[in-house]
Amino acid sequence: MAHIDLGNDLPGIRGPMAYRPETAKPLNELAEVLLRGDDNTLSRGERELIGAYVSSLNDCFFCQNVHGSLAQHYLECDMPYIDAVKVNPAATDLSDKLKALLSIAASVQKGGKSVTAGQVEKARSLGATDREIHDTVLIAAAFCMYNRYVDGLGTWAPQDRQFYVDRAPRRAAEGYADYDLHK
Amino acid sequence: MAHIDLGNDLPGIRGPMAYRPETAKPLNELAEVLLRGDDNTLSRGERELIGAYVSSLNDCFFCQNVHGSLAQHYLECDMPYIDAVKVNPAATDLSDKLKALLSIAASVQKGGKSVTAGQVEKARSLGATDREIHDTVLIAAAFCMYNRYVDGLGTWAPQDRQFYVDRAPRRAAEGYADYDLHK
Repeated sequence: MAHIDLGNDLPGIRGPMAYRPETAKPLNELAEVLLRGDDNTLSRGERELIGAYVSSLNDCFFCQNVHGSLAQHYLECDMPYIDAVKVNPAATDLSDKLKALLSIAASVQKGGKSVTAGQVEKARSLGATDREIHDTVLIAAAFCMYNRYVDGLGTWAPQDRQFYVDRAPRRAAEGYADYDLHK
Repeated sequence: MAHIDLGNDLPGIRGPMAYRPETAKPLNELAEVLLRGDDNTLSRGERELIGAYVSSLNDCFFCQNVHGSLAQHYLECDMPYIDAVKVNPAATDLSDKLKALLSIAASVQKGGKSVTAGQVEKARSLGATDREIHDTVLIAAAFCMYNRYVDGLGTWAPQDRQFYVDRAPRRAAEGYADYDLHK
């Protein structure tokens, strides 16, 4: 049970978002621009993967399953592949550029000052643009917020991982902005 | 110098916000609702103090000075008082309710799961409402994002703390939403 009375029994971030729609609006708009915006050279699958990876590092069950399932949907892979990325991206067949960006995301998760000039230089040498590096840092930072919001309020989450996999196609189609929290 | 070419020499979060206005918009809207919204029983000064405290725990020089100066402005105290809160809120003359909320914010900074039912219960017993607990958790979580955004991109910050004190009255008057990043 959540630490406060949310007045609804929605899972994960949807509970506090329905409780406080004034803050839900910019939270969802940020997710929409960052994770789903068309003007981006990182694919939606790559961006969701960064979010799922950071959520895993933050041990947030709800977010890592929501966004891991979306990554799996967009990248057309299976969940064991997403799980392998969460354990150790370097041991997967992801592109070297994406591995370098995930390394930056992991540093952001520890704290902003953990990101080194060397990490950024390596990502750039592997083809990452400044915009991609910017978005990676902000996606990682944003998930450090979303994860803390979800777990800091003690929200509940469905434990059956298939629940998230089943919902991913609709979330992918509908996006984050203005979506009906109660559906 | 920032890790990426931001195309401007604005300090702190204003650099990447001017670089990527599409994400700046919801980031500023979130700050406006959370820190400045009128529909709140936590004062603006109390909310800015929570943000400054978390920024201090995250060792983010820019954010702790921007928001510490705003807290000082709203609370009509001096900067040594704000600094004392950052070092140890329990040793100050803040209300017991606000101390309990700052304790929750400190746990959120460590990670969402660090918040205990006992901390929430204590805050509630001292008069904190569910909405105040919700907003405290989200303010703390949001600053875990802002701080990582600022430092993860290696932005620069004016080192003279008076710079922030001098700017606080204008920021307080103009707010966060739609403000001109270049001013």
